[in-house]
Amino acid sequence: MDTIALTCELIKRASVTPNDEGCQQLLGERLAKLGFNLETMVFEDTTNLWARRGTEGPVFCFAGHTDVVPAGAEHAWTYPPFSATQKDGYIYGRGAADMKGSLAAMVVATERFVANHPHHNGSIAFLITSDEEGPFINGTPKVVETLEARNEKIKWCLVGEPSSTKELGDVVKNGRRGSLTGDLTVFGIQGHVAYPHLAENPFHKAAPALAALAQMSWDDGNSSFPPTSFQISNLHAGTGAGNVIPGELQVQFNFRFSTESTADGLKQRVTDLLEQHDLDYSLQWKLNGEPFLTDSGDLVDATVQAIAEHTGRLPELSTAGGTSDGRFIAPTGAQVIELGPVNATIHQVNERVREADLETLTRVYEKVLENLLC
Amino acid sequence: MDTIALTCELIKRASVTPNDEGCQQLLGERLAKLGFNLETMVFEDTTNLWARRGTEGPVFCFAGHTDVVPAGAEHAWTYPPFSATQKDGYIYGRGAADMKGSLAAMVVATERFVANHPHHNGSIAFLITSDEEGPFINGTPKVVETLEARNEKIKWCLVGEPSSTKELGDVVKNGRRGSLTGDLTVFGIQGHVAYPHLAENPFHKAAPALAALAQMSWDDGNSSFPPTSFQISNLHAGTGAGNVIPGELQVQFNFRFSTESTADGLKQRVTDLLEQHDLDYSLQWKLNGEPFLTDSGDLVDATVQAIAEHTGRLPELSTAGGTSDGRFIAPTGAQVIELGPVNATIHQVNERVREADLETLTRVYEKVLENLLC
Repeated sequence: MDTIALTCELIKRASVTPNDEGCQQLLGERLAKLGFNLETMVFEDTTNLWARRGTEGPVFCFAGHTDVVPAGAEHAWTYPPFSATQKDGYIYGRGAADMKGSLAAMVVATERFVANHPHHNGSIAFLITSDEEGPFINGTPKVVETLEARNEKIKWCLVGEPSSTKELGDVVKNGRRGSLTGDLTVFGIQGHVAYPHLAENPFHKAAPALAALAQMSWDDGNSSFPPTSFQISNLHAGTGAGNVIPGELQVQFNFRFSTESTADGLKQRVTDLLEQHDLDYSLQWKLNGEPFLTDSGDLVDATVQAIAEHTGRLPELSTAGGTSDGRFIAPTGAQVIELGPVNATIHQVNERVREADLETLTRVYEKVLENLLC
Repeated sequence: MDTIALTCELIKRASVTPNDEGCQQLLGERLAKLGFNLETMVFEDTTNLWARRGTEGPVFCFAGHTDVVPAGAEHAWTYPPFSATQKDGYIYGRGAADMKGSLAAMVVATERFVANHPHHNGSIAFLITSDEEGPFINGTPKVVETLEARNEKIKWCLVGEPSSTKELGDVVKNGRRGSLTGDLTVFGIQGHVAYPHLAENPFHKAAPALAALAQMSWDDGNSSFPPTSFQISNLHAGTGAGNVIPGELQVQFNFRFSTESTADGLKQRVTDLLEQHDLDYSLQWKLNGEPFLTDSGDLVDATVQAIAEHTGRLPELSTAGGTSDGRFIAPTGAQVIELGPVNATIHQVNERVREADLETLTRVYEKVLENLLC
């Protein structure tokens, strides 16, 4: 079964997070035939697969996820979202681009590579989770923890996230900004607007601090990262009644931060500013991920060369966009890069992937293996 | 039937806004017997009573409302809210203090006054609505409009709102602040927090303007009014998702303003400030009432003297608190004052009025009539 056929088989398994629906078994059977040692790691509701061929280092790891986001309004799809309909050179279906096409390409590329190089250097591994689109608790983080505990190190990790924007290989992600969320509650005293002296409006007290946060420059970024950004995503105060001074103000904000800032540093600056404004508040933080960067090295070189050879393109190295599971793997010291199909339709109705791109992606992945393990 | 008995009869009529439930008929029958000419004015869902004894000026008018706010959770009441239970010197029930006790006292005071002074000067009038607690559209404003159209002028108006705070007659309201509400929407561009350059956070743009509004001094008030106050009562932005930059910010604010400011002046200052901050916004205004003041004159003197004679107290003249229907009567040029029972339990469960206070209030009202019409 080639990449296209395997992609279709995976799409037909409606593996909405955290369900795997047998995708990992399908992939594992193919890898087992190549001599991979399989470990299924189940944490709570999440099934993960760690597969490795070889016992020596260095370890090259393909990483990805079998889970998909919900199809949403199925009637809005031209073809049923789990039918894997092939039409006009595209495969349609939820997960076609994010990222079952990549998983299929990884397996077929490995099959071809192992057929040609049965005695390759180092090891090839697969780290597959079914919890990338969800709460990211029982997926990649737990697998990485397990590997770290037994000192099993990944040197190079290629994540199959759909990094391309217009043409296959035009963008490779070589890092991501950190993400830090704050949930702030500012306390005041509720009251009637006719008696303002008996109340304390928490928004009135907090407004100068919030204005200062919104205008603050956090860092200037660097050659790999744009400046750290701060955004208030949710803001709420008031009972709905027009004559009641609210007793509480709730604010949720998010930092996307470069390697020029740290989560602890940002927390401190926010706290200092709130203290300066003498607010009565509570603040809960959630660190969604530290920033990571693979700014150069043999993984970047191997990937750029493989893309250039099979597409003629020189990919842009980018750290833009949302988070990915790369943030959990990079802290172990691995080089991490993300390369996958065009992301224009992901998380939308009529998600699709170009069949020709899957063939090319398979050859690029195979070439990366050759560049690093031969 | 004395004031206490009449109060109980009124409470038993569950006249939740805009329903009158026959209260005006009950009052009207009593007034008709005294020679009052009755006009029932129905506007949409609201029944109003205009009753007048005499055809000469000056016109002294008792003003009030038969409607009550809902009882809320009836099980929380010690006695059923429309049972008018008399216990330990109090009458319990919805509307006991706001303001069926006042209505009963007005009628009984008028009966006594007319019995003693059948040929009093001027006229006595009653302006009774069943839409004071509601949208105040089809009640007092429409009656005043009708009177104005036929050039029927009120010289003195005593509104029976529960003005007293601890003891009967400790506070008389001789005016109210104006109330002006603004509904502001600030427009931005929604987007993903990971791509802030593609979005525009409306709160980030508006925060300095809102901080400035919250800190601004609008006027210093005067001897009758506290300074104008500005309060943001409701504030909302965001989809609930933590990774989405909101596309709109909604802000509702309210001014309570003194006679040192005007509604138009306040609107202009807000608009100027928003323009200075280069915001893309829409703003709707609602003028709930202009400020009014009866700072001196024969109505104030007559009322203060009557309170002093029957309670021994020197009332505080106050313009504090929420709005009342006085705001619709004062613009006709009438002197307006508010005097009624203790307001500690109004709009609450177990609303109640002291029976002894109703007797005293009846004597005070009668004395006001004597002071002005004899």
